[in-house]
Amino acid sequence: MSTTQLFPTPLDPTGRAPRALFNYAAGEWVRGAGTGTPLHHAVTGAMIAEAGSGGLDFGAMVQHARTVGGPALRAMTFHQRARMLKALAQFLMARVEGYYAVSAATGATRRDGWVDIEGGIGTLFAYASRGRREFPDEPFHVEGPTEALSKGGTFVGRHICVPLEGVAVHINAFNFPVWGMLEKLAPTLLAGVPAIVKPATVTSFLTEAVFAGIIESGILPAGSVQLICGSAGDLLDHLDEQCAVAFTGSASTALLLRQRPAIMQQNVRFNAEADSLNFSMLGPDATPGTEEFALFIREVTNEMTAKAGQKCTAIRRTLVPANLMEEVGAALAARLGGVVIGDPAVEGVRMGPLAGQAQVGEVQRAVDAIGRDTELVYGEVGLPDVTGADAARGAFYPILLFASRDPFNRTAPHDVEAFGPVNTLMPYTSVDEAIALAKRGRGSLVGSVFTADDAVARTVALGTAAHHGRLLLANRHTAKESTGHGSPLPHLVHGGPGRAGGGEEMGGARGVLHFMQRTALQGSPTTLSHVVREYMPGAATTGDAVHPFRKHFEELAIGETYHTPSRTITDEDVDRFSELSGDHFYAHQSDAMARQGVFERKVAHGYFVLSASAGLFVDPAPGPVLANYGLEGLRFVKPVYPGDAIHARLTCKQKTAKETPPDGIPQGVVAWDVEVRNQTDEPVAVYTILTLVRRLAS
Amino acid sequence: MSTTQLFPTPLDPTGRAPRALFNYAAGEWVRGAGTGTPLHHAVTGAMIAEAGSGGLDFGAMVQHARTVGGPALRAMTFHQRARMLKALAQFLMARVEGYYAVSAATGATRRDGWVDIEGGIGTLFAYASRGRREFPDEPFHVEGPTEALSKGGTFVGRHICVPLEGVAVHINAFNFPVWGMLEKLAPTLLAGVPAIVKPATVTSFLTEAVFAGIIESGILPAGSVQLICGSAGDLLDHLDEQCAVAFTGSASTALLLRQRPAIMQQNVRFNAEADSLNFSMLGPDATPGTEEFALFIREVTNEMTAKAGQKCTAIRRTLVPANLMEEVGAALAARLGGVVIGDPAVEGVRMGPLAGQAQVGEVQRAVDAIGRDTELVYGEVGLPDVTGADAARGAFYPILLFASRDPFNRTAPHDVEAFGPVNTLMPYTSVDEAIALAKRGRGSLVGSVFTADDAVARTVALGTAAHHGRLLLANRHTAKESTGHGSPLPHLVHGGPGRAGGGEEMGGARGVLHFMQRTALQGSPTTLSHVVREYMPGAATTGDAVHPFRKHFEELAIGETYHTPSRTITDEDVDRFSELSGDHFYAHQSDAMARQGVFERKVAHGYFVLSASAGLFVDPAPGPVLANYGLEGLRFVKPVYPGDAIHARLTCKQKTAKETPPDGIPQGVVAWDVEVRNQTDEPVAVYTILTLVRRLAS
Repeated sequence: MSTTQLFPTPLDPTGRAPRALFNYAAGEWVRGAGTGTPLHHAVTGAMIAEAGSGGLDFGAMVQHARTVGGPALRAMTFHQRARMLKALAQFLMARVEGYYAVSAATGATRRDGWVDIEGGIGTLFAYASRGRREFPDEPFHVEGPTEALSKGGTFVGRHICVPLEGVAVHINAFNFPVWGMLEKLAPTLLAGVPAIVKPATVTSFLTEAVFAGIIESGILPAGSVQLICGSAGDLLDHLDEQCAVAFTGSASTALLLRQRPAIMQQNVRFNAEADSLNFSMLGPDATPGTEEFALFIREVTNEMTAKAGQKCTAIRRTLVPANLMEEVGAALAARLGGVVIGDPAVEGVRMGPLAGQAQVGEVQRAVDAIGRDTELVYGEVGLPDVTGADAARGAFYPILLFASRDPFNRTAPHDVEAFGPVNTLMPYTSVDEAIALAKRGRGSLVGSVFTADDAVARTVALGTAAHHGRLLLANRHTAKESTGHGSPLPHLVHGGPGRAGGGEEMGGARGVLHFMQRTALQGSPTTLSHVVREYMPGAATTGDAVHPFRKHFEELAIGETYHTPSRTITDEDVDRFSELSGDHFYAHQSDAMARQGVFERKVAHGYFVLSASAGLFVDPAPGPVLANYGLEGLRFVKPVYPGDAIHARLTCKQKTAKETPPDGIPQGVVAWDVEVRNQTDEPVAVYTILTLVRRLAS
Repeated sequence: MSTTQLFPTPLDPTGRAPRALFNYAAGEWVRGAGTGTPLHHAVTGAMIAEAGSGGLDFGAMVQHARTVGGPALRAMTFHQRARMLKALAQFLMARVEGYYAVSAATGATRRDGWVDIEGGIGTLFAYASRGRREFPDEPFHVEGPTEALSKGGTFVGRHICVPLEGVAVHINAFNFPVWGMLEKLAPTLLAGVPAIVKPATVTSFLTEAVFAGIIESGILPAGSVQLICGSAGDLLDHLDEQCAVAFTGSASTALLLRQRPAIMQQNVRFNAEADSLNFSMLGPDATPGTEEFALFIREVTNEMTAKAGQKCTAIRRTLVPANLMEEVGAALAARLGGVVIGDPAVEGVRMGPLAGQAQVGEVQRAVDAIGRDTELVYGEVGLPDVTGADAARGAFYPILLFASRDPFNRTAPHDVEAFGPVNTLMPYTSVDEAIALAKRGRGSLVGSVFTADDAVARTVALGTAAHHGRLLLANRHTAKESTGHGSPLPHLVHGGPGRAGGGEEMGGARGVLHFMQRTALQGSPTTLSHVVREYMPGAATTGDAVHPFRKHFEELAIGETYHTPSRTITDEDVDRFSELSGDHFYAHQSDAMARQGVFERKVAHGYFVLSASAGLFVDPAPGPVLANYGLEGLRFVKPVYPGDAIHARLTCKQKTAKETPPDGIPQGVVAWDVEVRNQTDEPVAVYTILTLVRRLAS
């Protein structure tokens, strides 16, 4: 290792002052020793930086994450980690213009950069929001309901998910140097696991710039994140069974890394997102002139040219009714012909170069293979005409549209991914045949179908789902708001079986759990309530002379219980409730009427039981309880007949502090477990109510 | 392949008439070609069978599953598959005595056999029950809520899980020849995926017997299950990306199989459950004389001797307060001394032999390694004294208890699994030290702690969870009903990180999803409602002149909607509701009172809004709707003040046919999506109600 300094100077993306990129290892910015890999401006070809990780002690980096970052993150609750992500997202959002400037050197248009930079920051925001909504304000997650494991109820089960105690290694692809980092960091950090980020070298200068912002922010605890620009050396050999690898890149690299002895022998989790020959299908109904036809032509064009086709989710195989092959080809050609290739900095340029000369070579090799099984219907192999740049110096590649005449037998377009502005049209003669073609991708990230016929959408969705991680069912109704075929979203899973790597990322809470261990706990309800800090029926309760509605959020203990007096439900009560509610359902009218259904005699309304129970447990005077805002899991388990006497148990089940809302009253959510029983102590109704309760001070 | 016949003759477990075991391949019973592996009675050493798979066409078996079994299972709904599992469980349960007779030849006691045979059948029952409760009556599963992907609500997301289209290969361990098969078959078949079962050869004669029952029952569709007794040959090389492997066995075998090119290159799912050095900890409070101490001594003894210690979940490392090492050793020795080893058929015998001579050799090699780092405190290496058998002919092994003096530095007991009645005591001086020792297992299936102190239970649970798939928190309150340290349960996940294989089985619905592909669907609410057959807010609705409460289950369409008239809520209504319910919460009393909290003025009770809405949409006359039995996801999203007028939308959201209950009325569950709005059409309450609705005919 050569120099250590406080902070890397901002990179000059024009190439006038190339410098070595920095790594961030064990809390220090360090340059790699020796000569690094030269990195070039994708448009001008000028050398702008050099990336190397020579001399880095990868074992020490793993150890730093394990001993410094992990414990710090695990000491935080999900809500604290979520607020940390939000603060980080806000910090980075204020600096995006600087990142756009660097992004231009990767060949990205402003729109490409938006997807990468603001899409990445948006993922941080999304996880910040879900972290507070879907996880408890605890360092661990409680998953699913209490499992009854015994008849008497003294032995129950519950699943918790806790952070892995190792490090997550993120190996990212070159096409989204920012989003690729942030879409993995968001769920990893929310899980409470530190990460080592290893971007693809060719565009690592952009990752370095945003990573520098992360460190500059000072928002993440020490040891949470580290960065390697250059080779990852023997990094993976230092991992153990508490670590995880999240990989995006080629299937061949995934295979190599996955077979590393440390990974195999210790069953290190390895999530891969690899090659994908995504399909898009024009529905049989979507003939020229329909809105769906126009949407399809637009989408295929966008997917071919956005990011110069360097998207793992881009449309590679375009399934078209056989009788429309010519028309679709012509419509696409017309639209593709309007796409200006060149320097994205120049007004009117819609598509930039590939990320580098190595990518040009790789795409050309794939195109050669595809070309042998198809014919070229749009574009010309060779240097394209470019605007505002020198096609020979930048990594420019032409837009190429192929057509297959025999897609079941000449299979290169199903097997070879040309990671550029390249796509193949394929004819189908029936929906079943289109589904069979879609499956030839042997596992893809995404497929789409453009149809106004929901029956076709259903057949295609259910027919291809086993082979895809995501399916877009597009029509005129989604046209305005659809995020499109190629956009993974934090809410939805991203990944796919087989060739696509067999992995899964994001998908809301699911993506967080990839970095956690799920553990089944067994014990008494009292012990498990104590462990997970949530009351479970059967657990020991507490209580004192003070009504729980008279206590502030902080004063309430999990398990705190109020037993109401009892109230006899009269025949007159039922009649009055019918009258007041307007609910004259026959079972509430008379014994004779009630017997026409499933009841023995005239029965009280379920909502009256609910309302009368509230009457029994509510403490009426103004106090800390602000409102009852919801109810979950209500079951009327036994009818209440006039003459029955009911009483309720109200137990503090769970507490979640909230950020102070616009009304300015510091508050928290308190969930109450309620059980209503009759005079023979049989349960008649069970449910959970949700209340807002004042906090003492903010 | 030699003979094909309709059915294998029942095996004579005494060894008086050894025969070749059968395989069940592509719908036929076939004997392997050539000489098979001789299988011996574990107690007498007599040869009872020969197992071989020579000549089997493994590729044809995979193809049979793919083309015959898969399509048949995928055509069934979850509920149909669940009923199939229940029928199968009932069929096998009627035949258990025959299986017990064969089980005796594996060396199992009656109790060991009960865990294996009835535990396995119980898993079928459990999945049959969950299949109907937790999955829809559709061939696919809808997971999680609708995801809002756009502001205007025209573009939404939803996750579905569909069956993999390949085959699940089950590779099972020798210790539970029945449970091992059934605990994997239950979730696989419920998922809709066919299986090829490959039991460990040494006890495959028992698997064959129960498998023959499965085929004899005729309950499963053709191609659903196949059996290989003997080597699996090149089976795995025929798998593709739609297949899955579920493996239980040694870590070394798992590693070999997982690295097969077909598995690695196509990202075939590989779930492993392998070695595990499970811990049990005596809490610092659980001193001699406490109930927990006695429970702990009993549990450790049971776990050492049940199944002669051949359980992947058995206690291998026993963590004891350092000052109690002697007392614990003495108490265990006293109890272990009472365990009679011998032929389980003989009255009073508590522990049988190992499964075979090969196992004796393997355990001895492990014991040699452990012995070098510890001292023997109970038992004697060499042939044990046995009752009713010849120790030299059966696969008998002595009970051995070791003690470690320096468990942090002499590490064999943390690393070497002796798969027999062998255990090591280890001293700890603090709870943190005990946790550190527990983690030395590098990933285990299960750990347990015996303590009456819930704070200790919490510290141990959260401290060791990342390293374990299951944790038992035992105390006097669970003593009566606890299923014990060593029992995996269908409700809870079974598996563990690292050395334990990194996999996960069972855990209720989770275990089913391992054999399904999760796919994110994106589209308009109308399209997605059509695909998943569940109404989503924003989807197109239908309706006619007939009130939906006047329609039978079959007559209701998803999306069918009733719009109620409107009702103005008066000040007097609120007062009357306070009076009738007894709920005099201050916000319902007067404007001035209400302003002491979060409301602008006197507000209607949420439960009154709920009740009045029911009054608006209920059709009172006797008809197909039998009862309102529950409610989910109620949120009061805006206050209703006197003078506001409310109206409701009631939409048929989801339908689930039920089996006809004891009252004899054919019925189904209909879930209704309800939205209540005010006079300015703002939502004030949203919820789902659950009703029972008559079916036309059964």
